[in-house]
Amino acid sequence: MSDYLAPTQDMAFVLRHIAKLDEICTLGDFEEITADDLDAVLEEAGRFASEVIAPTNRIGDTQGSSRNPDGSITTPEGFQTAYKSYVQAGWGAAPFEAEWGGGNQPWVLGCAISEMLTAANLAFSLCPMLNQGAIHLLSSHGTDEQKARWLPKLISGEWSGTMNLTEPQAGSDVGSLTTKAVRQDDGSYRLSGQKIFITWGEHDLTDNIVHLVLARTPDAAPGTKGISCFIAPKFKVNPDGSLGERNDIHCVSIEHKMGIHASPTCVLQYGESSDGAVAEIVGEEQQGMRYMFTMMNNARLGVGIQGLAVSERALQQAMAFAQERRQGRTLTSEPGQQVPIVAHPNVKRMLLTMKSVIEAMRCLLYYSAAFVDWADHSPSSQDAALAQERVDLLTPLCKAWCTDWANEITSLNIQIHGGMGYVEETGAAQHYRDVRIAAIYEGTNGIQALDLIGRKLPIRGGAAIVELLTEIAEVGTVLTGFAGRGQRDGGSTQPDNHAESLANMWPALAQALEATTSATQWLAENPGEPAMAGATPYLKLLASLVAGWLMAKSALAAHAELAQLDGTGAETQKKSSLLKSKILTAEFFCTQILPTATALLPATTSGDRPLTAIDETLRAN
Amino acid sequence: MSDYLAPTQDMAFVLRHIAKLDEICTLGDFEEITADDLDAVLEEAGRFASEVIAPTNRIGDTQGSSRNPDGSITTPEGFQTAYKSYVQAGWGAAPFEAEWGGGNQPWVLGCAISEMLTAANLAFSLCPMLNQGAIHLLSSHGTDEQKARWLPKLISGEWSGTMNLTEPQAGSDVGSLTTKAVRQDDGSYRLSGQKIFITWGEHDLTDNIVHLVLARTPDAAPGTKGISCFIAPKFKVNPDGSLGERNDIHCVSIEHKMGIHASPTCVLQYGESSDGAVAEIVGEEQQGMRYMFTMMNNARLGVGIQGLAVSERALQQAMAFAQERRQGRTLTSEPGQQVPIVAHPNVKRMLLTMKSVIEAMRCLLYYSAAFVDWADHSPSSQDAALAQERVDLLTPLCKAWCTDWANEITSLNIQIHGGMGYVEETGAAQHYRDVRIAAIYEGTNGIQALDLIGRKLPIRGGAAIVELLTEIAEVGTVLTGFAGRGQRDGGSTQPDNHAESLANMWPALAQALEATTSATQWLAENPGEPAMAGATPYLKLLASLVAGWLMAKSALAAHAELAQLDGTGAETQKKSSLLKSKILTAEFFCTQILPTATALLPATTSGDRPLTAIDETLRAN
Repeated sequence: MSDYLAPTQDMAFVLRHIAKLDEICTLGDFEEITADDLDAVLEEAGRFASEVIAPTNRIGDTQGSSRNPDGSITTPEGFQTAYKSYVQAGWGAAPFEAEWGGGNQPWVLGCAISEMLTAANLAFSLCPMLNQGAIHLLSSHGTDEQKARWLPKLISGEWSGTMNLTEPQAGSDVGSLTTKAVRQDDGSYRLSGQKIFITWGEHDLTDNIVHLVLARTPDAAPGTKGISCFIAPKFKVNPDGSLGERNDIHCVSIEHKMGIHASPTCVLQYGESSDGAVAEIVGEEQQGMRYMFTMMNNARLGVGIQGLAVSERALQQAMAFAQERRQGRTLTSEPGQQVPIVAHPNVKRMLLTMKSVIEAMRCLLYYSAAFVDWADHSPSSQDAALAQERVDLLTPLCKAWCTDWANEITSLNIQIHGGMGYVEETGAAQHYRDVRIAAIYEGTNGIQALDLIGRKLPIRGGAAIVELLTEIAEVGTVLTGFAGRGQRDGGSTQPDNHAESLANMWPALAQALEATTSATQWLAENPGEPAMAGATPYLKLLASLVAGWLMAKSALAAHAELAQLDGTGAETQKKSSLLKSKILTAEFFCTQILPTATALLPATTSGDRPLTAIDETLRAN
Repeated sequence: MSDYLAPTQDMAFVLRHIAKLDEICTLGDFEEITADDLDAVLEEAGRFASEVIAPTNRIGDTQGSSRNPDGSITTPEGFQTAYKSYVQAGWGAAPFEAEWGGGNQPWVLGCAISEMLTAANLAFSLCPMLNQGAIHLLSSHGTDEQKARWLPKLISGEWSGTMNLTEPQAGSDVGSLTTKAVRQDDGSYRLSGQKIFITWGEHDLTDNIVHLVLARTPDAAPGTKGISCFIAPKFKVNPDGSLGERNDIHCVSIEHKMGIHASPTCVLQYGESSDGAVAEIVGEEQQGMRYMFTMMNNARLGVGIQGLAVSERALQQAMAFAQERRQGRTLTSEPGQQVPIVAHPNVKRMLLTMKSVIEAMRCLLYYSAAFVDWADHSPSSQDAALAQERVDLLTPLCKAWCTDWANEITSLNIQIHGGMGYVEETGAAQHYRDVRIAAIYEGTNGIQALDLIGRKLPIRGGAAIVELLTEIAEVGTVLTGFAGRGQRDGGSTQPDNHAESLANMWPALAQALEATTSATQWLAENPGEPAMAGATPYLKLLASLVAGWLMAKSALAAHAELAQLDGTGAETQKKSSLLKSKILTAEFFCTQILPTATALLPATTSGDRPLTAIDETLRAN
């Protein structure tokens, strides 16, 4: 049996109740997806992820991708076969336009599929993920001719796309890049310069690699305003679509990283032995950053999904180990018998911390991804604009909050394993090492926080965030309506009755809402350095609130489903336990995880004065 | 220049003001240590750690220790030379009795020396650290003959000691161990069985290795009560002290771990090709766990020091990188110029989070270690008993809180490095991988929390914790006395005057104190599973409070020193900045770090009902 089983039940639950997939399917561009259809798609993708991709994860880590003397890359054993199966099954094509061979599925459903692929093998999944970014950019800004030339093979996965932004002096500060693009008389360009940290920048899985490259034309404005975006393929493509000669783009080295060993992180040299690598421009000169931003939300949501996916796999490993490993006794266990460690309250707390945050991540990510579909497909342009605002606002939360927590959750998995968790053979360490990159790339989490306060809070003069907070407040009426109902309605005296659990969530949510409201106000009144000093704690505060709110909504949905359950069979019992567990998990999140985020209010609103301790420290040296 | 410089100024500050080293030196067994003496010792040990040991850290990681087909271990290049220098310099002997060749220094000073050695190379430092544990156990429970035979060479470091507890089925549950010890007619024993996770269980640094082994005599009681403790050397020792024949103890494999690659983690087989490895008993049969517990505090403080030490090294790396790496601009920087990233508020926040917690760790650890000296050397047996209670109470906090934070702090170092932090070459990843073990071994942090609530809170009917909380309350009067004094006394209108900083600390400390008091009460009233469910958040809450209290005390000490500063020279300016930075850092800790711990009150006092979500989840599968 695979050590990863896609959590299809929870995925379907969140897709239905939080992402409102049914409503997305009424948008006209999509077909209706019945509950059975949805289950079938998730089961099938889950089976593929578990059986075909997951077994490549450990060998990918131990072997890694390696660079040969000629600059080519050899991927680990089994990767080529797995990738072929992936292309054949067509999973990568799901969320793209049918016109170019896509499956025309909602984006949010594609996210669920991505979650499974990523949990199965993060390093492997990066190749399709970067490819999605390239497809998205070309779909939005390419000419019809470019779309026809590049999209079909990228969407099918026969070729893969990459994103080339970073240079040694231009990491977070993309505007400092210096790769040169010189226009030729035929309208093509020649690129020269060096790009670093190019994920899957060279590999042996596809016949061609299509690089999307940010570069600067000779007369361009300084900073991000002067950046243009180019298509530069590894092999030039002849007019008939066949592959032509090798372009002057070469992998000169790969990084030796802490994790995702199977993903080749390349230094690419452009135009080293010629007047430049041949490239064509996307759209207009000096509009490159704008184009890049159109794919940024999706890419950042994708990285948030990485946080979720690896966390989910770590949780499954921890749950399995905690049921199997026997150590110690409980107050009620039989003398002389060791109990499975899942019986110990402190192990349960670790598991439930993992589980509750993972379910909250899934809510936050699928909820946000749903607005990508609304923004792209809503018949009302006003609705589309509002949806775009919402996803713009939530994207930095998805990226940063989910990846920060992924570090903690994969660490808890190690902790539950004890000494065995520190031994590489177990695999727990790999999840911890692999996922550590997610808080860094695609804009560090610090950059996400600055994006949130600098670009997202000001949307429509602050109206977008206020509308979100207002919606959150509305759930209070519903939740508080459950107070005392456990006793009154059911006459139950059970301390775990669900009405009490639902009512319990609101006080913590209300405090978080109050703190967030006041922090939001403070940031607006203290722009510049003081606000920037509070950006990171604010992001965590807001993200935890939104996640807690969505968890409360899912607890309400579970409560409603529970009331409709019929029968007493084993299946009903299981379903009932699942729904009860959703309610209790949401309660745990709101009452035990959320308060520590609420306590970030003073850190958010303290301004930059306390940070001068660092300046004093520097003066003391 | 080495990439680690011992933070001797802060060490001396904490030794003087928090550990009260001067008072310890009046205890009679020690000589007076003047401020100059102290500085000289720290400088010299710091120089040794930076210049001799620190350069072995990276090669230790990349080469690792390896096992040869004959079962011997080869340590990485340079380790033998470094170890010889360590023995020659005599650093390991510092805190032990002069009678057996020790330096007769206070234990707390030995801790400062350990901090430096550990920061220089964690994997290397484990060999001396385990040796210290063995020495401590033999000093306390060995016969005079055993002391004379084993201690001199262990204290000098010519031989090394190990601790053999864990077996495959007996990790956290030590009482389940099954290694057999059979008494012989001559009073010696023969050991047979397998021990795992034996740190430095076999190596090439010393001529002999002295294993302290827990095992069970044939007629022993079940569980921890039936465990005895034995000395089993790698080479038997002849009556004249020369080495005799090889004992039947062999390293059959070593673990492939996520970090501390240079530290061989051995599976040791006892008595595989004989009737057992030859061993002598320590003390009496079936008293082994009691003996082991006498060294447990010191070992656990030692692991806490590992958390501090690796964090300090990570901070130094982060500070250096943040001053060197240029990215982006600030609101006031020159157009077109990139600024060092230390200028960005979110980078400052990461650095200050690291720095404030590191200084708090150092306070907590040195403060606790000072009570080891009081307990061992106080002329009043009542004072000694009170000191022992205090260190017993604080030890789980030192071990768990410092190592949990070390994971976070080494992660922040990676984050500050961005993509470069994920590349192994940089070395940031090594600190993150290395220190991850510290939360696991020597009793997992979950075990520490159970120890705290199960064995430590009940000390003297709860009086020990109440006395500590009462002492903490007393600082409130002092701190609140500073409220408004910035304006009143100095007439200063500077928003960063230190009186305000001091006064600012109390509200957060008072809230933490109130939460801790109420949590302590709740745990006493809800013993068993409900209390166990809250053990981990309670430990974090209490540890953060104690650390915050000690930070406030060190801010008060810095404030007093600042008032005494004379002159206007460069040295005085530097000293002034250092003291100001201590105050601001303490303020940051109390106002921005502590509140998130205070917010753990609901998690601490929620009992085990919410944790039943995990039981429901298991039923749903």
